Amino acid sequence: MVLIDETHDPARRSWVASANGHPDFPIQNLPLGVFTPDGEEQPRAGVAIGDMILDLAAAAEDGLLAGDAALSRAVEALADGRLNAFFALGAAPRRALRARLFALLSEGNPRSMAAEACLRPASACAMQLPARIGDYTDFYVGIHHATNVGRVFRPDNPLLPNYKHVPIGYHGRASSVVVSGTPIRRPNGQRKGSEETAPSFGPCRNLDYELEVGIWIGPRNALGEPIPVSQAAEHVAGFCLLNDWSARDIQAWEYQPLGPFLAKNFGSTISPWVITPEALAPFRIAQPPRPQGDPAPLPYLLDNKDQAEGAFEIELEVLLLTPGLRERGLAPHRLALSSTRHMYWTVAQMVAHHASNGCNLQPGDLLGSGTISAPEASGCGSLLEMTRGGKEPVRLASGEERRFLQDGDEVLLRAHARRQGFASIGFGECRGAVLPAPQPAA
Amino acid sequence: MVLIDETHDPARRSWVASANGHPDFPIQNLPLGVFTPDGEEQPRAGVAIGDMILDLAAAAEDGLLAGDAALSRAVEALADGRLNAFFALGAAPRRALRARLFALLSEGNPRSMAAEACLRPASACAMQLPARIGDYTDFYVGIHHATNVGRVFRPDNPLLPNYKHVPIGYHGRASSVVVSGTPIRRPNGQRKGSEETAPSFGPCRNLDYELEVGIWIGPRNALGEPIPVSQAAEHVAGFCLLNDWSARDIQAWEYQPLGPFLAKNFGSTISPWVITPEALAPFRIAQPPRPQGDPAPLPYLLDNKDQAEGAFEIELEVLLLTPGLRERGLAPHRLALSSTRHMYWTVAQMVAHHASNGCNLQPGDLLGSGTISAPEASGCGSLLEMTRGGKEPVRLASGEERRFLQDGDEVLLRAHARRQGFASIGFGECRGAVLPAPQPAA
Repeated sequence: MVLIDETHDPARRSWVASANGHPDFPIQNLPLGVFTPDGEEQPRAGVAIGDMILDLAAAAEDGLLAGDAALSRAVEALADGRLNAFFALGAAPRRALRARLFALLSEGNPRSMAAEACLRPASACAMQLPARIGDYTDFYVGIHHATNVGRVFRPDNPLLPNYKHVPIGYHGRASSVVVSGTPIRRPNGQRKGSEETAPSFGPCRNLDYELEVGIWIGPRNALGEPIPVSQAAEHVAGFCLLNDWSARDIQAWEYQPLGPFLAKNFGSTISPWVITPEALAPFRIAQPPRPQGDPAPLPYLLDNKDQAEGAFEIELEVLLLTPGLRERGLAPHRLALSSTRHMYWTVAQMVAHHASNGCNLQPGDLLGSGTISAPEASGCGSLLEMTRGGKEPVRLASGEERRFLQDGDEVLLRAHARRQGFASIGFGECRGAVLPAPQPAA
Repeated sequence: MVLIDETHDPARRSWVASANGHPDFPIQNLPLGVFTPDGEEQPRAGVAIGDMILDLAAAAEDGLLAGDAALSRAVEALADGRLNAFFALGAAPRRALRARLFALLSEGNPRSMAAEACLRPASACAMQLPARIGDYTDFYVGIHHATNVGRVFRPDNPLLPNYKHVPIGYHGRASSVVVSGTPIRRPNGQRKGSEETAPSFGPCRNLDYELEVGIWIGPRNALGEPIPVSQAAEHVAGFCLLNDWSARDIQAWEYQPLGPFLAKNFGSTISPWVITPEALAPFRIAQPPRPQGDPAPLPYLLDNKDQAEGAFEIELEVLLLTPGLRERGLAPHRLALSSTRHMYWTVAQMVAHHASNGCNLQPGDLLGSGTISAPEASGCGSLLEMTRGGKEPVRLASGEERRFLQDGDEVLLRAHARRQGFASIGFGECRGAVLPAPQPAA
């Protein structure tokens, strides 16, 4: 049963003025993150409220977060300026913290003056990765993406036979996951066009983004001990946006037989704020029915509660800002609008599958959903799909066209959850600009 | 130029009696590792010498490791009971430590009595993972393995077109890398035989080992900054053995299009001792010439020094101990004898390729070579190859046969480097026994 409580009251206002009506961070969201105030080095845990960040260590020091055992555990775990220990605690301390922050930041709270002293303008802080990422796993649950990409290679039979049985995933690179705002260098690599007789090494020619949701793992399972799908949601600490930058030409040449490697591990950008399962509770939906004829999930992936409320309705957006748009003062161009409802597998199914062989998941591990495309042409989560492998360029208001990304381009991902009777919340931005490739090292 | 110095003198003897003539750990080896003495919790850095371990923190406390700046940095970095900080330092501190340990442990050293007080019997210690593994990458540089496996699927054209151009690799799971001696639970998973119409979930039927060498990364490169092949060797901190346990039936069903995932991430076993580049210096060889007609490596992978001395001659062995052999008091059965000379790419080429797109490697990252099979039938590094996918069982002296691994089987990997005029050294054991699968979680 999804927990909807007082913290979802859409009428509640905050004494932090910018929070009221904020597109991302009204008082009903309260995402956690790690920041460094400009000019300081020490990372600190904080919560986003409107255009401000509440410094949690400062609030704790001022006695604003004192409370029961669950709350104390949360506050203690947050002290080290990384969320791993907090993620490890699971739901009860996280909920206790949310309830307290909701009260503290609500209009009329008697301690608002003390709390105000713990606020920092977000614009005067640098966001950091919220946790040390142990392992990063990327899934492939966007069925329209899998179909679009598969169609390029197998027009009559785009989905492989395992797709509707197995939540397909593979291991990505943890070290090169960076926080929103970090520039991404175009990679060099081996690529071989179909018309070329031998590969060459040089700057990627077909640089792409991928629109994904990231999932932060909370409490661990021991090696050798699977997580039943009915308990999988308890192992999720929160959500973010993820741009899985992809070098399509490198990928095409390298990926057989062991999967993508250098095409993907030169950088993956995440949004800094961890949107909690509690904040997203109102936006849960039943897993959309599978098309007629699709196989039922195997028992280890099937849970009634998960089927009834394990999916999400979250709107996902990709925007592109090019040098040409910037020069002309034009707005970013919206490349795609999609939704998490197009995930063929739920997050619980991804987690249960991942641990079904005994693989141990750890607090701060990151899962990617895989690219989530909508079925329409306006909902492609990557340029590979949108331009059909570079054949049909996108035209921009600046007169520019794009088949793939150019140096100087900036990609922005956004996500918003909206539902009648609830306050809308957002994920904040996931953005990254493309720098030229370095001179090949040789 | 490979550094051969006094520490390779084959005539040198240690006052630690068991070191002289020891098959793995004579005084010319001096591998580093992390151990906990029985009954204690705190991990400590140590060096293997014969059947003993020299406790480095204790030796430092007793003033046995005092010296110049390079040596001091090494000793300081080793204090935290993990080798990550030590790996980060690179060659100079590592060489200073080796030189000091060689002198200290040599017959006739005046401080031998003080040093003896810092020895622990290895049999009274538990070995730990030597470092926190940030990312684990598995390569595929054993060309005979790639050919043998490819032949099962494509008899006429076993190697894919990219193999001789790209040092193929993919990301593995860091969290489930375990130290030698840790039992491995047979995984459950989805598998679908070619005669079956739908997949089912249950215990892996085709459990296999893979004979690999592991490579520990030393100094880091920054994200976006490639490592030239001519400098790649400086980023290697040492070597170990690696058993990349593989669930072949799960692999066959899941691996397209993104590569192996649950078939490989339920456990990977490494030997605990880090064999340094210095210890292996005498066993370097020229990269064996590529067969006539093979393409030359692209410039970013080609370095004359690396071609001249970047490969290794290290003998690799797999042994199997089954319940039947154990009951009858029979010796482990040798399944395969191979050599690192069958690596199609050097370690420097693997490192340079990995970082060629700017991917950042970090101290304590682990690379696997991929399975290293010899060209002969007696040199298959996995059962998949040896039994031709389970068609031709191996017969053991106990009367048992094996197509794949059974519960209770124990796999042992060993490695030894031998060369006329030098003391032989070994890697120590990499062993793991198979436990039954857990009841499927559902």
